[in-house]
Amino acid sequence: MTDLTMRVTTRHGYDETVALVRDQLAEAGFGVLTEIDIRATLKAKLDVDVEPQIILGACRPQLAHGALQEDPSIAALLPCNVVVRRAGDETVVEAFDPRAMTALAADASDTLLDVAADARTRLVGALEAVRVA
Amino acid sequence: MTDLTMRVTTRHGYDETVALVRDQLAEAGFGVLTEIDIRATLKAKLDVDVEPQIILGACRPQLAHGALQEDPSIAALLPCNVVVRRAGDETVVEAFDPRAMTALAADASDTLLDVAADARTRLVGALEAVRVA
Repeated sequence: MTDLTMRVTTRHGYDETVALVRDQLAEAGFGVLTEIDIRATLKAKLDVDVEPQIILGACRPQLAHGALQEDPSIAALLPCNVVVRRAGDETVVEAFDPRAMTALAADASDTLLDVAADARTRLVGALEAVRVA
Repeated sequence: MTDLTMRVTTRHGYDETVALVRDQLAEAGFGVLTEIDIRATLKAKLDVDVEPQIILGACRPQLAHGALQEDPSIAALLPCNVVVRRAGDETVVEAFDPRAMTALAADASDTLLDVAADARTRLVGALEAVRVA
């Protein structure tokens, strides 16, 4: 799935990385509209233990609005998920690549391509800031 | 985007359809983990007016757990969004097709294909129940 997501790793701990990601998403102009603590959810629902991991649903309203005006079906791919998970000695940060939204749309307009490119540039910047932190 | 989503339309009103979708998702074994009221969010953040629309993040923990064990990157595609939106005289219900998750994964295992097929069958059933309601 590497072509559908963008990923960086860091040696920072899990909690610290989640905080870093929140800061960098805000810095890049994204709000976090949804949060799913996967570990807590699976523990509560299935009583199974998995590594710490969370899904943050990032959204920049200006971009979402622009995309939805072009293609309302884009809503099925929103918000843009940014996942933080612990994997051995590392913490992984993996974001859905907004470019995939346009690849998935049958015939993406120039506006939609611009919106996706804007979102992607912001997310890449946020991930890079987390990587070098 | 028709190949990435599954869609039905109904002549029921928006609020009634949202309630129907909630009932049918529960009936199909999905919990709703996230909700984004797109109209309220865009009004609050951008002061723009759009048609009523909501993103419900549906998740069946057993299936999510199975998928994540096969490929942790799947988290970037979870939960499975089901969108309800008003469009003229109709209400549209559009769900992200779980099959797309496996199409997107580089090399989907048989387990992942089974999980996606299970989720898809349940969602198709829920959409059909909404359509005929």
